[in-house]
Amino acid sequence: MKKTFRLVISCPDRIGIVAAVSQFLNERKGSITEASHHTDQESKWFFMRHEIDAESLSVDVATFREQFAPIAEEFDMKWYVKDSEVLPKVMLLATKESHCLNDIMHRWHTGELNCEIVGVIANHESLRSMVEWYNIPYHYISVPKEDKMPAFHQIEKCIDDAQADTIVLARYMQIFPEFLCQKYQHKVINIHHSFLPSFIGAKPYHQAAVRGVKLIGATCHYVTADLDAGPIIEQDVIRVRHSHTATDMVRLGKDIEKLVLSRGLRYHLEDRVIVHGNKTIVFAD
Amino acid sequence: MKKTFRLVISCPDRIGIVAAVSQFLNERKGSITEASHHTDQESKWFFMRHEIDAESLSVDVATFREQFAPIAEEFDMKWYVKDSEVLPKVMLLATKESHCLNDIMHRWHTGELNCEIVGVIANHESLRSMVEWYNIPYHYISVPKEDKMPAFHQIEKCIDDAQADTIVLARYMQIFPEFLCQKYQHKVINIHHSFLPSFIGAKPYHQAAVRGVKLIGATCHYVTADLDAGPIIEQDVIRVRHSHTATDMVRLGKDIEKLVLSRGLRYHLEDRVIVHGNKTIVFAD
Amino acid sequence: MKKTFRLVISCPDRIGIVAAVSQFLNERKGSITEASHHTDQESKWFFMRHEIDAESLSVDVATFREQFAPIAEEFDMKWYVKDSEVLPKVMLLATKESHCLNDIMHRWHTGELNCEIVGVIANHESLRSMVEWYNIPYHYISVPKEDKMPAFHQIEKCIDDAQADTIVLARYMQIFPEFLCQKYQHKVINIHHSFLPSFIGAKPYHQAAVRGVKLIGATCHYVTADLDAGPIIEQDVIRVRHSHTATDMVRLGKDIEKLVLSRGLRYHLEDRVIVHGNKTIVFAD
Amino acid sequence: MKKTFRLVISCPDRIGIVAAVSQFLNERKGSITEASHHTDQESKWFFMRHEIDAESLSVDVATFREQFAPIAEEFDMKWYVKDSEVLPKVMLLATKESHCLNDIMHRWHTGELNCEIVGVIANHESLRSMVEWYNIPYHYISVPKEDKMPAFHQIEKCIDDAQADTIVLARYMQIFPEFLCQKYQHKVINIHHSFLPSFIGAKPYHQAAVRGVKLIGATCHYVTADLDAGPIIEQDVIRVRHSHTATDMVRLGKDIEKLVLSRGLRYHLEDRVIVHGNKTIVFAD
Repeated sequence: MKKTFRLVISCPDRIGIVAAVSQFLNERKGSITEASHHTDQESKWFFMRHEIDAESLSVDVATFREQFAPIAEEFDMKWYVKDSEVLPKVMLLATKESHCLNDIMHRWHTGELNCEIVGVIANHESLRSMVEWYNIPYHYISVPKEDKMPAFHQIEKCIDDAQADTIVLARYMQIFPEFLCQKYQHKVINIHHSFLPSFIGAKPYHQAAVRGVKLIGATCHYVTADLDAGPIIEQDVIRVRHSHTATDMVRLGKDIEKLVLSRGLRYHLEDRVIVHGNKTIVFAD
Repeated sequence: MKKTFRLVISCPDRIGIVAAVSQFLNERKGSITEASHHTDQESKWFFMRHEIDAESLSVDVATFREQFAPIAEEFDMKWYVKDSEVLPKVMLLATKESHCLNDIMHRWHTGELNCEIVGVIANHESLRSMVEWYNIPYHYISVPKEDKMPAFHQIEKCIDDAQADTIVLARYMQIFPEFLCQKYQHKVINIHHSFLPSFIGAKPYHQAAVRGVKLIGATCHYVTADLDAGPIIEQDVIRVRHSHTATDMVRLGKDIEKLVLSRGLRYHLEDRVIVHGNKTIVFAD
Repeated sequence: MKKTFRLVISCPDRIGIVAAVSQFLNERKGSITEASHHTDQESKWFFMRHEIDAESLSVDVATFREQFAPIAEEFDMKWYVKDSEVLPKVMLLATKESHCLNDIMHRWHTGELNCEIVGVIANHESLRSMVEWYNIPYHYISVPKEDKMPAFHQIEKCIDDAQADTIVLARYMQIFPEFLCQKYQHKVINIHHSFLPSFIGAKPYHQAAVRGVKLIGATCHYVTADLDAGPIIEQDVIRVRHSHTATDMVRLGKDIEKLVLSRGLRYHLEDRVIVHGNKTIVFAD
Repeated sequence: MKKTFRLVISCPDRIGIVAAVSQFLNERKGSITEASHHTDQESKWFFMRHEIDAESLSVDVATFREQFAPIAEEFDMKWYVKDSEVLPKVMLLATKESHCLNDIMHRWHTGELNCEIVGVIANHESLRSMVEWYNIPYHYISVPKEDKMPAFHQIEKCIDDAQADTIVLARYMQIFPEFLCQKYQHKVINIHHSFLPSFIGAKPYHQAAVRGVKLIGATCHYVTADLDAGPIIEQDVIRVRHSHTATDMVRLGKDIEKLVLSRGLRYHLEDRVIVHGNKTIVFAD
């Protein structure tokens, strides 16, 4: 894959933004390999993502950052530019279920996910051997029912020591505490095993079986202090029939959970997701 | 299409039901063209639907009914047998939106739906010409905000006069009153423009846009006194993106509403749906 | 819907195109409501579509055209700019099957398709009444097996008299002759009832049933002299099972044919489709 | 999971089959947990699959087999009955790509696939460590271009030594020779990375990119001597856009390949697939 710079911008919509940015890139001989725009008509907010061939540019990422700053200021931009070769550092959290974890690790192992997996934190020992086969550090941190806070402080330290910038709850069966949600805002990605906002909370497949729905789904979203209510990144569904029990749904749902989480994570890692209020703009490829 | 008898059964599960029924059919030389079974393991309830080539049988439907009664009694069956050539009578209810109505009428017109459409009841005049092109009687019954009951009694009379046995709310923008829900239990089919149980009630696409979901859906269900909470017959979804406003969702959603309603209605008309508690068994072909 | 100008460009890829175009729009105060880019890495070709709020612009479409010409020349662009309120004129061709025709006419009737339907040409009389209900002129042009050319010349005249710029073969069961394919290049849209390139030619559902596929599909494509081999605009599929005969597939397939044709037609009418070699770039919304 | 007997039957259609079979089961107190029927109207052939609670039966599988034989003979049945606890023995074949292999092994490891994986045969060494982590024997059998037959005889011996009854080509990049196709008829399952019959043979994603299709797919089928033309078990598709190169399709396609192969394999292992001519009846749950 070619080295690119990813320039991601959001700002109040007004005339001249695209002209200013493309003029800037043009002056530095930037060859744009992917460009995406969106204007939210309701909030009058503008979003843009450019992927620029790094070799075509006459400047490095630090210089780019410095020189772009005045334009960003002029248009009141929230923005960043990233070098695609500086890999995001991902910390995975899991409990006992391995389908999402295995899926992510396998994609990473075969070069499909551009990131560094810096570790797995789990509140059980059962997945250690699988994780260690991938040469990924395994941190066993038990979360006792009666007093969970010390464990979460240990988790925080573990994340920070590893300098992780993306945290993935890969079917981690613990509610992430508010202080971590806030500290890592828009950096914690969860997979919920229902088509949100249906079936929030525990045992969604059981809820789905009781309601008699004809499709079940999964939702990849950023974690906020509000349970299963954060900005949605990706969703998908699969058909079920009257013959499927809650147990069957658990099995069928795994395929959707894996897919939806991996897809959402890839969008996040490639800087394709912009959070706006409680919604996301996803510039999928 | 060949004339068939449709034998639909539900009863407590126990050994011997299939043997008894198939023995009965065998003795009458019945050639089974479609057979479906389901056992609900939780409630230990058994469901069966047979479609039998009418010409192969040595008995007519009345004799069949009479002779089958003892078996039905032995196994505590809720059951019926229907002649596929006795067409169900369908009353359609609509407001101003024509996409579902047109879809159903066109399918019926081209022989895709095996039923008789006995009329359209609408609380506006705008769809009259379209309906009358199909030679279907159009009943304009206004439903004034301040006092809706007289209108619903008129609707009841209209349904009964036409001897309708299936009532379809084809985007009828009025809440069906409890007394009609009860009178026509499991005979009133509604299309709700969301993937239930998400976004119950008014303006579901607006709710979906606010929540930022990545798929929108539609749900075909039997109407009960509990709003949008009746047994689900069929559902489907369509992908949306950040660029889609609530208005776009309304447009995109229409395609799913039409499909889901027509599919659900077809299952109902072909006696493929059995209601069990608040769920359905759907023996789709 | 707001009046927009749609600027659609394709040209050899090189640095500076976006800067030049956005500078041009910026100088005329153009507010971009939708912008899409694509670079084909293999052919090094660049594609761009802008939708610009017409009221924001300080120029009308003719002046825009005149003033943009030098830029277009500089970059060797194939390009056009269109006023969204100048509606495309669509001629529909059909035989006896009405599902696609009815679907398109109903969408147009309810304001979903931004076009003028200037007529329906059919080689049977059976759809006349339905078409005339929509106040659309119906042209019966028989296509006798032994000598089809006079009919196609009559069709050509009919299209030209109506000044149609888009021709839709809505399940028109005649092969379009080469001279018309060439005359109306990239203006004739067909719906083929299979997932191309599977099952080219006659009776695709029958072919699908024989092969035992588990999904059937439909393909909307531009017609070329090479049968069912033109640039694909849109495709979709639906699941089938062993219980579905070719006849069932015909019925199930209709739903996909309608959807795929209407979606493809909408993309075409909104200038979202650019043909490049034998492929299309579709800037879907 | 409860122990069941699976009775799978195909025979010429005639009246009395269901009665005879259900009478037989009834006499032995068999509690039917799943029953599926199908009649192929064209060939007048009948197919039936029963899953019977083993504990409810008064006979073991050997006695069942013996006692059922006269009925089978009377109706000219091709049939078998299997104990669900006698696990099928699966041999996997792979080259270098690990996505399908890892997916199957992980499902098996977590108890989702009811089988015994007796080994992996590969023509490269690269997957050894992953396979051995699962404690599955790894057989490296090189297939030299100039003379492949000795390798295939070695493969045959390896399959037979392990007493494998199901052979899965999990992206095995070698054409299976005719003598093995014949020897293991309806026992060799392949995943082809296209929506067959489109794009038979090599590099289907490249072919798909050239043709400009809007969906790509995968096909799980039984291997026959006729390349990619055997009976199809399962298929699925995923949407692609003009921005996706052949390389992107390879990546996106993997998700569909895995899913389709695992689904097809599960149907096969649960005796849900009956081959009839070049088609399959799949009694999916």
